[in-house]
Amino acid sequence: MNLKCLAISLATTLTCGICTAQTSQTAVSDDFKPSTVNQPGQEYPQVNSQGYARFRIKAPQADSIRVSLGLGGKGGTRLKKEEDGFFTGTTEGPMDEGFHYYHLTIDGGVFNDPGALNFYGSTRWESGIEIPAHDQDFYAVKEVPHGNVQQILFPSKSTNTARRAFVYTPPGYGNDKSKRYPVLYLQHGWGEDETAWSNQGHANLIMDNLIAEGKIKPFIIVMTYGMTNEVKFGGMKNFKIEPFQTVLTEELVPFIDANFHTLADKAHRAMAGLSMGGMETHTITLNKPEVFDSYALLSGGLYSPAEFAGKAKPKLIFISCGSKENPTGVNKAATALKDAGFNAVSFVSENTAHEFLTWRRSLHELAPLLFKN
Amino acid sequence: MNLKCLAISLATTLTCGICTAQTSQTAVSDDFKPSTVNQPGQEYPQVNSQGYARFRIKAPQADSIRVSLGLGGKGGTRLKKEEDGFFTGTTEGPMDEGFHYYHLTIDGGVFNDPGALNFYGSTRWESGIEIPAHDQDFYAVKEVPHGNVQQILFPSKSTNTARRAFVYTPPGYGNDKSKRYPVLYLQHGWGEDETAWSNQGHANLIMDNLIAEGKIKPFIIVMTYGMTNEVKFGGMKNFKIEPFQTVLTEELVPFIDANFHTLADKAHRAMAGLSMGGMETHTITLNKPEVFDSYALLSGGLYSPAEFAGKAKPKLIFISCGSKENPTGVNKAATALKDAGFNAVSFVSENTAHEFLTWRRSLHELAPLLFKN
Repeated sequence: MNLKCLAISLATTLTCGICTAQTSQTAVSDDFKPSTVNQPGQEYPQVNSQGYARFRIKAPQADSIRVSLGLGGKGGTRLKKEEDGFFTGTTEGPMDEGFHYYHLTIDGGVFNDPGALNFYGSTRWESGIEIPAHDQDFYAVKEVPHGNVQQILFPSKSTNTARRAFVYTPPGYGNDKSKRYPVLYLQHGWGEDETAWSNQGHANLIMDNLIAEGKIKPFIIVMTYGMTNEVKFGGMKNFKIEPFQTVLTEELVPFIDANFHTLADKAHRAMAGLSMGGMETHTITLNKPEVFDSYALLSGGLYSPAEFAGKAKPKLIFISCGSKENPTGVNKAATALKDAGFNAVSFVSENTAHEFLTWRRSLHELAPLLFKN
Repeated sequence: MNLKCLAISLATTLTCGICTAQTSQTAVSDDFKPSTVNQPGQEYPQVNSQGYARFRIKAPQADSIRVSLGLGGKGGTRLKKEEDGFFTGTTEGPMDEGFHYYHLTIDGGVFNDPGALNFYGSTRWESGIEIPAHDQDFYAVKEVPHGNVQQILFPSKSTNTARRAFVYTPPGYGNDKSKRYPVLYLQHGWGEDETAWSNQGHANLIMDNLIAEGKIKPFIIVMTYGMTNEVKFGGMKNFKIEPFQTVLTEELVPFIDANFHTLADKAHRAMAGLSMGGMETHTITLNKPEVFDSYALLSGGLYSPAEFAGKAKPKLIFISCGSKENPTGVNKAATALKDAGFNAVSFVSENTAHEFLTWRRSLHELAPLLFKN
């Protein structure tokens, strides 16, 4: 898979270069439709079949509105004021498929687009837009049995709070009380929170669809907040893993095992995370090898064989990223692990960057590999 | 209770009149703190101990910012531009205790306050602010066992969609599979959705606390979207009850009874709603007397004995509103029902209007009356 992925990645890069060059000469298709993550009844923002995004914002007395989305280092898309009091504009070129965070800068202040739903990212609720992906079927809402996503409040002595987590339970969970399930602990990225994997990631729909297709054995997913430390609003340079590691491994895992129908052992417990959540996964799985047996880093760093010196090999190591990130590094790391006798798998998401379509696809690839025996 | 409530209500009105008159002469206390429903890490908006709200918005090149909150028909609070590029301002007087929706008008356009969390109301995600209530303890997060709120997707043939609902299950739900629970179907108001009773209403915390205090028998709460018709974004004048009645009574109730540990009979099923949800409750309970046996209208209309001609009396009728709404009407309606032999209870929330503190308190009063035998 490594060489193939790398080849695809290189081809992709070349193709994209050509695409971008052609874009300025290509007509923009006039088939704009409201983004699928607009607020109910809102016509804008819109997206066309080529992936261009169009914005329309009412602010009759404003001087300038800029949208943070756009191509290459130009500071986003400047909207033009029309005579009807609306500012309108279209991205200079097509956007990558998938989900993007954005915001407006109105007369120098940062606000959200009143037409779009908000998603928690960058430590704030940001506007979101969805460029329909050619493979979006795998996270579509279909006529299949649906699992539930439930909010739980679990007691945390170490932080002296009742902490929130979301728990995905597969369809039919609880019908047969003797049935017990493995658990994946799944972490968000920097500036996001425990809502990200459901709202932006559609983790529940990815699972429902894989289960309906018979491609995976059902398992539980647990998602909680991973920025359990005092530097949560100031970047990562003073980040310490211990507070979150304590919450996760000493408080949340025991709570889940006590309150859900889990297979409560290392063999049936996995940890995965995207971006900063990958960094956390990397550190915690190595610090606490007795807790988890399958590890996955999604755009979130790499493992090397040397890190496991003197330790048992985990059942599975999964490493992924978008083709616009570090596919070479991801593939090399997986090769090195495999050469050292690890069960390692790499995955590169085509034509995506450090964004949620990469992670939706990564979860879709990861899930069938987990808890196979 | 009627006369007492009415007396309190009148006293309240008089007291408030005096308070407002005094306000302009009273110093505004300088003990402003961030609102409890701010976005993580955000210092503004702030609230002081008297209930004044203060706003601070960055928009260096904007000309005007107005906040939709404020006193009596003056179009809200106009913020003043400071030299540092921020607009700041304080409400002219104290606000009612509890939760308020609001938005900003920036140079003629409607946007949310980037400092505040958003809540779905008025068919859009609006900014929210919380003026701490003197009785807020009943919906505080405490060190008690917590129930879960889970998102479910249920199939709806009549609307050809998978529809979303949230289900509160009490602490310990599922531990003893032979234990079955009554169910309250609880509806939001116009322009809100199925997230309102958890996010704005804290229904789950109200239940957790009442259960921990031994004041109620645990029950399940089901919350779904009640604007199931084509006029959802255009006021109520063409509202028809049938589409929602079908979803609720023919699709959701059977789904809940099939998938949760419910006592699946009329005696153990209640319906309640706030505002428009009260209107829906009123109509559906009378149309479908075989489905529900306890009815509650929270700031959402009244029942009269004549409406039950030829029908069995329900186990309970609960009618409530804020003291700044229609307390006389609510109390008179309950008296008429009691005089006609109904088990009717009225509740008037002191010093509140058509807002969520009225409904939090109403649920807190209603819950102990439900499913008593």
